[in-house]
Parts: sequence; C-alpha cells; structure tokens
Amino acid sequence: MTELLSAPSESTAAVAAPDTGGEPVEAIRPQVLAIARAAKVASRVLATLPRARKDAALNAMADALVAATEEILAANAVDLERGRSADMAAGLLDRLALDPGRIAAIAAALRDLAALPDPVGEVVRGSTLPNGLRLRQLRVPMGVVGMIYEARPNVTVDAAGLALKSGNAVILRGGSAAARSNEVIVGVLSRALEAQGLPGDAVQSIDRFGRTGGVALMQARGVVDVLVPRGGADLIQTVVRESSVPVIETGVGNCHVYVDAAADLDMALAIVMNSKTQRVGVCNAAETLLVHAQAAETFLPVVLRSLAEAGVVLHGDSQTADLAPHGVTIRPATDEDWAKEYLALEMAVRVVPDLDAAIEHIRTWSSGHTEAIVTSDLTAADRFVAELDSAAIMVNASTRFTDGGQFGLGAEIGISTQKLHARGPMGLAELTTTTWVVYGNGQVRA
Amino acid sequence: MTELLSAPSESTAAVAAPDTGGEPVEAIRPQVLAIARAAKVASRVLATLPRARKDAALNAMADALVAATEEILAANAVDLERGRSADMAAGLLDRLALDPGRIAAIAAALRDLAALPDPVGEVVRGSTLPNGLRLRQLRVPMGVVGMIYEARPNVTVDAAGLALKSGNAVILRGGSAAARSNEVIVGVLSRALEAQGLPGDAVQSIDRFGRTGGVALMQARGVVDVLVPRGGADLIQTVVRESSVPVIETGVGNCHVYVDAAADLDMALAIVMNSKTQRVGVCNAAETLLVHAQAAETFLPVVLRSLAEAGVVLHGDSQTADLAPHGVTIRPATDEDWAKEYLALEMAVRVVPDLDAAIEHIRTWSSGHTEAIVTSDLTAADRFVAELDSAAIMVNASTRFTDGGQFGLGAEIGISTQKLHARGPMGLAELTTTTWVVYGNGQVRA
Repeated sequence: MTELLSAPSESTAAVAAPDTGGEPVEAIRPQVLAIARAAKVASRVLATLPRARKDAALNAMADALVAATEEILAANAVDLERGRSADMAAGLLDRLALDPGRIAAIAAALRDLAALPDPVGEVVRGSTLPNGLRLRQLRVPMGVVGMIYEARPNVTVDAAGLALKSGNAVILRGGSAAARSNEVIVGVLSRALEAQGLPGDAVQSIDRFGRTGGVALMQARGVVDVLVPRGGADLIQTVVRESSVPVIETGVGNCHVYVDAAADLDMALAIVMNSKTQRVGVCNAAETLLVHAQAAETFLPVVLRSLAEAGVVLHGDSQTADLAPHGVTIRPATDEDWAKEYLALEMAVRVVPDLDAAIEHIRTWSSGHTEAIVTSDLTAADRFVAELDSAAIMVNASTRFTDGGQFGLGAEIGISTQKLHARGPMGLAELTTTTWVVYGNGQVRA
Repeated sequence: MTELLSAPSESTAAVAAPDTGGEPVEAIRPQVLAIARAAKVASRVLATLPRARKDAALNAMADALVAATEEILAANAVDLERGRSADMAAGLLDRLALDPGRIAAIAAALRDLAALPDPVGEVVRGSTLPNGLRLRQLRVPMGVVGMIYEARPNVTVDAAGLALKSGNAVILRGGSAAARSNEVIVGVLSRALEAQGLPGDAVQSIDRFGRTGGVALMQARGVVDVLVPRGGADLIQTVVRESSVPVIETGVGNCHVYVDAAADLDMALAIVMNSKTQRVGVCNAAETLLVHAQAAETFLPVVLRSLAEAGVVLHGDSQTADLAPHGVTIRPATDEDWAKEYLALEMAVRVVPDLDAAIEHIRTWSSGHTEAIVTSDLTAADRFVAELDSAAIMVNASTRFTDGGQFGLGAEIGISTQKLHARGPMGLAELTTTTWVVYGNGQVRA
C-alpha cells in the first residue's frame, strides 16, 4: 500500500486548469463549501468514535469493495477506454487499471489499517502542575482532511481509510482520468459507512466539479483543516501556491547517494544499484550519485558499468566521463540534471573532492527528501547526518527505505518534504493534532 | 516573559500597507532575500552548536543588553517621542516604553532560556527494524524563523533568544513604532553573538525596509522555513493570506466560560471573575460567559453584579437582561458580540438551555483558543472535553492558565490556534522539526 501511495505523479491535470468550461470558482464554491460543511458535521461523529467501531467500519468498507467488484470494474473500463482514446501513456493506463486482484489488494489494505493502533486519544504529554492542575496533551483528529491527487483509484480508498482510522472526514479530488472509477468507489465506501450507522459524508468526492472544485477546496480555510496534495511537483507547487488551507507538501524526491573515500565499495555498489534501480518512478529512488575523488578511480568504472547494464541513462561531470569504462556513454551533466527528479532509469553522477563538497552539492540541489552516505568513517557519517537538511538520512543503507511501511509506521498518506507538522513518512499520527486538557478544582490565576 | 509575549495586538501597522512610499516589493526583495540567505548560512552554524555554547551566548546577550541600557533608552526615547507626536494611545506607549528595570527583566528572560533544556537532538522515536536498520527520529532546528510582530521591543529579544536556544536563525520585522529601539537592540544582540564567535547574522532585522520588507519576507519560501506572526487578528490574517512561507497562526482568543447546571457556584464565580478580569487584553482572557438555564436564576444576578462592579461592560441576551440585578446595565448582545475578542473589560453573556447548546455556541463562535467548563458532573465535563475543537479545554479552572509558563513549558513564542504543527502554547520544541536518521550496514530493499 505504501508503495502505491508514494508512487509519483502521472500528470498534473488535477488542478492545473479548470476543465469545467472555464466556469469561475465562484459558481462552484457554494457547492464545495456545502460538501465541506457536511464533512465537518460528519467529522464530529468520527472524532469521538471508539476504535472498535472504526475498525468494524474499515472491515465493512473492505467487504463492500470486494462485493462491488463488478460495478467498480465496469466504471474503470469506461475510464480506461477514455484514457486509450486520449492516447494515455501505457504506464498511466496501468496505474489506472483495476482488476479483481487489485481490488482485493486495496480492500486488504483497509483491513491492515483496522489492525493498526488508534492514534486518537493518545496522551502525548502530561503532568500535574504545582497548583494541582492536571495537564494532558491528547492526540485528536484534525477534523476535515482534503486530498488532491491524480489518477489512481487505490489512493481514493487508502485516503478514505487513513482518514477514518485517524477520526477525520475526507474530501477527495482525484484526477479526471479516474473520475468514473472514483465516483463508484466513493459511493461504495459511503454506503458501507451508512450501513454501519456512520455518516456517509465522512467520505465525499468533489470530482464532479472538475479542477475548479479543487480550487474551491483550497480556499475553504476554516472548514477544511488540512490539505494533502499527492502527485507530481507541478501539482504540489500549485496547491502550495494557491491554497489558503494549511498544506502538507509531499513527495518530491531528488535523492542522493554519496560514496565516501572510506566506503566499502561492494556495499556502495549494492546500495547505489538498489537506490536507483530497485524501483524507479518512486520518490525515494536515488537520482544523483556523488563519489569521493579518492574512491572514484576504483569505484566509478564498476558502478557505471552496472548502472549502464541495468539500462540507466547516465549524465556525468567530466571526471566521471573520463573514468567511464569502454562502451558506457556519459552525457554531460548540466545544472538541470543536478536539479532533476528523473523518476526513470536515469542518473546524474559527479566526482567530489571531499565530504564538504558532497554536503554542499546536496544542500544546493536536494529536494530535502532522502540522502544516503556509504562510509566506514564515523566522523564522515556524523557530519553527513548533522550538516544536511533533509527528511531522512541513511548511513550505509538504501534511499529506498524512506517509507512508512519500512519504518514500521504501518501505513502512510505521503512523505512530507516540509518541516512544519510532519517530516518524512506520514502515518496515522500525522493526520492528527493535539489538544490540551486541564482538570482543576477551582484554580484561578494569581 | 510569557505574559508579555502573549499579550495581544496594539495595531496592525506591521504589514497592513507599505510605508516605504509605495515602493514595490520587487525593489526590496533582493535585499530581503540576501538577509534571508545570510540567516540560512548562520543557521547552519547554530544547528550543530552544543547547548553550552548556546547558553553562554544567551547569557552574553543578556549582559550586553544591560550594558547597553543607556543606548537602548536613548533610542527608545526617540520612538516614544514620535509615538506621542502621533497621539499614540497610552496603553501602546506603555508597551513601547523601556526603562532600566524593564531592560533588566528582558535580559533576565534570556538567562531563564539558558536554564531550559535544549530541544535539539532529542530522540523523539527510535527502534531497530526487523532488517537491523537502526531508526531514530531526531529533533532538529527549523533553520530560519521569521517573526512579524508589533511595537513591543521585548518581543525582539524574546524571539531572538527562543530562536537561538532552538538552534534557529531569526529575521525580525517589528512594528515601525519601535523601529529605533529594535534597531539598537538587534545591533547589541548581533554584536554579542559575534563576540562569542557566533554569526551575527543569526539575529537580523528587516525593519528598515518597512512593511514592504514584511511582504518580501512572506514570499521568501524555500529560504525562510517558518513565519510566526504575533499581534492582532488583522496582522495574523494578513500574514496567513499573503504568505507562501509556512505560517503558524497565533493568539486570537475568543474564549468562553460555561457554567453548567451542576456547577459549584462559588467556584464558578471565582473562575469567571479570574478569566475575565485578572488581566484583560490578553488572548487567554474570557470574552463570553454561557450559563445553563438551571443555574441562571441563582448565578446570574451574583456574577453580573460582580462583573459590573469590576467595571466590566456587559452584553447579554434577553434572559440575561431579565435576571440582571437592579442598577446593572445589560446591553443587547448581537452576533458581533458573540464573535468579538473584546480584549477589554467587556463581556457577552448568554443563557443556554443545556450543554448541547453551550457546545454549539462555542463551536459556532470560538476562535479555538481556550474554553472552560465549571461543573461537578463528570459526564458533562467529558462531553465538553470531547466535543469541542479548541487548543485548550479547562475543567473547573480559569481560561488564564493557557500559557507556556503556566503549563511548565518554560517559555513560549506564542499560542497557536491552528492545528498544524503546534496547538496551544508554543515552546522551544515547537520551533523545531525532526529528521529521520537510519543507520545500517549495507541494507538494501528486497
């Protein structure tokens, strides 16, 4: 589930421009606000729901999805047909496509959520103050969570499940490419909630309002408590720029692997290959390889050949080009390469004179997601950890481990690359806030 | 210190409109960005500074302020003179005014900060994963913190101290009314840092660029990591609306006291009086009193008389007016009264038929800061705690306790009324983020 969730963008269609015939946001705002207010009402029920009822609802949602397989596949076929007519790329079509096995897997993810502990009600801090006041900081739901994402129907289900488990109502704005599939899925989930005696408005879609609906959602400050954009850099930047609702920025990963002078080069080779090729097109895949000058002569010919054999297109500086083995092509790397999240079998490679230069390169070009160092030098490892400014730092491990599932958080709604509220893999706890509850027996302030 | 910090706005002059002769933000942006980048460079030094050096610097800053008393008072006299010429209100002049005692108190607050534990480096979570990876979530500084606030020179020092202790560089935009005082203070602090071998750019002011500088700061996304507006509702809303830098919303408090049917009425009287009158003009003072209908006949005549005798102007619904004792004037309360943060000896009063009506009133009108219930009914207390959506809920205690100092957090940079990142009193920990550090010995992902 986490893999699917943290997969990157296929398009930025979700918010890039209105697709409702240029209808102004004012025309749609009242309807989106009505949906948001209904979500807020539903969220009050969810906020005080005991875990057992939420888990029962998650399992019921899973059952309902499996039971509705035929209906969902029929809707999905319509989306796929429209995608094919519009010459949608094969990879995008694959992400859009559902089959009985995929629906079963999506349902299983909901059952996995039911098995996770409830974040709501956790006592984060607590003490008795000198005046006898009993102070508790409790974890509570956010309220209404908005999701703006792209054409993958599984995200619809995952987001609904994560929101429910954390006691939040959710408003979904998926990509228009999956509109029919999402409509049917949201209907199934909403009815499953109602059958459990819970408000169906806890899971709502605004897909029918097109991209303008997404804009109205971004402006629903005060009703929508947080907005999580999921997708490519353009989508996320649009939401960050346009939204007055607080946003958690997710997922853009220009990740680096730095092979130090003191690296075990076999380990370095394994980590580079895994970070780059184990799965491309995900935000925690590596995009740039930095090699200490002292290791370059030995290491680069080996790693460049391995990468090339794995089909990786290579961009390098002149020293890298000089050390490339016969038959391995190195295209000249430009600043664009250092900045780019390839999300493909493509990598930029640079020889650096020392650790300082590696740190400077990463601080200049990184998106702040994940960086890895391969070294047996404790001082180098300590400095790499202390002097970078990214959500995750790996010492002698693959960048691919930055993931809620891998970190043992159980599930994730995205990987935050911002510093406020959540950083790195966001699990259920990151969909909550806290409240201070103070019990006294008449205390007043002197 | 917390009292001073959480005191509310005197004006919204800090950002409301450009005061640089209409100079466009483009003309100033390069200079503000240069300051922000210098702050970022300084922040890298602060991020890895051991606690002992930060504490030594805080004490040196305190010494330097006291040593510069004469220089600071001379600058302050200029600001005060300008304020008087502009017919500044007496309360605002008082907040602006410094004297040797106040400077000593401001310096003492820096020494208090030195005595607090260092939030940086705290291991928030950690575990060893099944594959042997050692996972640590560490508390780290944000980087560059921006403060936009109003004309109180003490905030300049407090913000600089809190930022330094949490390992952050700070960029200050104070109100123009305190411009001379702030300029001298920032110079003193910056030189004190340099004398300690630390970067003077860790504390910088952009006051010389006027309000347009504040706008440029709000647009410095990617360099400034977080912006904390401190002041009145207009200032805060302007920053929330205009800023592309992530904002932590602070301080607007439309706080409620609800006296339940099952309240101890002596306790209720003490809590209402303390919440409303112990200090007015602060965000945790109560603005509205709600009284259960069953308690109204006994309680209202007593509490209304006490409030009136304390000089509180009263606005009430018709039931309240009917129960007012002879000689106590009740003005008719309008929706404007329910919504208003008076910040003055003024209160809205309403009789509610039951707890549900009290909860609905608060959910409708509250700014989400602090609400108090007075009751001996456990079910009523539990429901009040569970069904409201505010940063702090008091059961049988004054609203005035919502304060970093009172909560034992040691110091606060403000009281957050938003749900993202920080909620309620914000101490040093809230000026940090976290990073995930993962140590392996060659692990790759299968």
